[in-house]
Amino acid sequence: MPVPLSEFLKQFLLEDRLQRFEEVARQRTRHLTIVLENIFHAHNASACLRTCDCFGIQDVHIVEDRNRFEPNKDIALGASQWLTIHRYQQVEATESLPDADAAVDADTMPAAAASRPHTSASPSATRCCIQTLQQQGYHVLATSPRQHSVPLQEIDVTRPTALIFGAEQVGVSDEAIALADQLVHIPMYGFTESFNISVSAALCLQHLTTRLRQTQVSWQLSEQAHDEILDEWVRNSLGSKLTPLLRRYEQDHQN
Amino acid sequence: MPVPLSEFLKQFLLEDRLQRFEEVARQRTRHLTIVLENIFHAHNASACLRTCDCFGIQDVHIVEDRNRFEPNKDIALGASQWLTIHRYQQVEATESLPDADAAVDADTMPAAAASRPHTSASPSATRCCIQTLQQQGYHVLATSPRQHSVPLQEIDVTRPTALIFGAEQVGVSDEAIALADQLVHIPMYGFTESFNISVSAALCLQHLTTRLRQTQVSWQLSEQAHDEILDEWVRNSLGSKLTPLLRRYEQDHQN
Repeated sequence: MPVPLSEFLKQFLLEDRLQRFEEVARQRTRHLTIVLENIFHAHNASACLRTCDCFGIQDVHIVEDRNRFEPNKDIALGASQWLTIHRYQQVEATESLPDADAAVDADTMPAAAASRPHTSASPSATRCCIQTLQQQGYHVLATSPRQHSVPLQEIDVTRPTALIFGAEQVGVSDEAIALADQLVHIPMYGFTESFNISVSAALCLQHLTTRLRQTQVSWQLSEQAHDEILDEWVRNSLGSKLTPLLRRYEQDHQN
Repeated sequence: MPVPLSEFLKQFLLEDRLQRFEEVARQRTRHLTIVLENIFHAHNASACLRTCDCFGIQDVHIVEDRNRFEPNKDIALGASQWLTIHRYQQVEATESLPDADAAVDADTMPAAAASRPHTSASPSATRCCIQTLQQQGYHVLATSPRQHSVPLQEIDVTRPTALIFGAEQVGVSDEAIALADQLVHIPMYGFTESFNISVSAALCLQHLTTRLRQTQVSWQLSEQAHDEILDEWVRNSLGSKLTPLLRRYEQDHQN
């Protein structure tokens, strides 16, 4: 029986490194996730990624109807390489892509897709993202201080939950508010009516992850997800060594 | 008996506005405060001010040994006008200023003071700030992941507490760590070893204010502080109307 590729690759990392991967992976969750809708400032988007990594949130959903998401390396501190980033951009209606496929990965998406003119007839990236999450069983919460918004403390953390954070100044879009299952806000005591976007994401995640860890919910990654993510981390860590190792593995298994 | 100046000025604001001031003032505290030590990026410093206002923290201490603090208006959303900002800059030893006076107010400080060359013999702004707070009875905590740092959850919130946040990348200075009464950190579960600075401040304040509000500690402003702060807010709100009103009051009371 040949060595599986993932096991083959692990041999080329130090034992300490692999142990750290295992440690972090055990704290990772897909039970909570966040959606960043048209975040404009790179430093905000990047601080959100860094926070997700710190709190063990594996998935980040990026909606780019209007603003292109460009994390700032200094602030993200490389956090994005440890996360699973799902990007949503508006596609032309004539393409008739099934909903789930409209969630394109930055690495595999042809450059043309990003530059195509947006038409109002096509489903927006916001709609595509929210419906994808709802189909996956997430309770989708839009962060907004509008009427009927509930305080963060009242959220049922036992349900798989996705939190949408909107663009600076304008906040979560009307469309996101209409499609979300519930609105949520952080109670505030001052004159300012909203927190900075990256601060808001961090406060929600601190509160919800703390409560989640106190429940009996099995919030950890499934065995399959754990293995896939670990494999991804191993590949990222190998950097420029990866391609020659893949070639070597292929040659060994052809003979 | 003449009308006190503060009562005279209040007449020129709408009732709703004054009621909002009262509401916010009742939620204000001096039991917790933060120190920003040489924060470099304006958006971080500004997000911290906005967060303090949102959580009812009245006092912010700004140490400017190396970096000049310039809040970004877009991000602070005018939060600094509702806070009491204490600024500390290094002064020359030959000036023999008493410690407390070295805490200069931006408005009253002569421009020359800021541009004077710093000498290594003079007490640093960091030392001046920390010692001033300790003399006022604050338990000073430096946020740092170093050895002997305790998790945020273990902090005794019943004591008046000041939290120091250090500059981006380098963190809290060695001097601040040596002078602080205790080190504190936020537990993290990812690869990234620190939160963004404004995120870190928000997480600490959310945790500590939530716990503080559940205690029997009288964390609210003293009656005197309440009145002084309300008076300050009234004056700020009057804007360009203030000077002619002060003149009018003076004339009325001379006659």
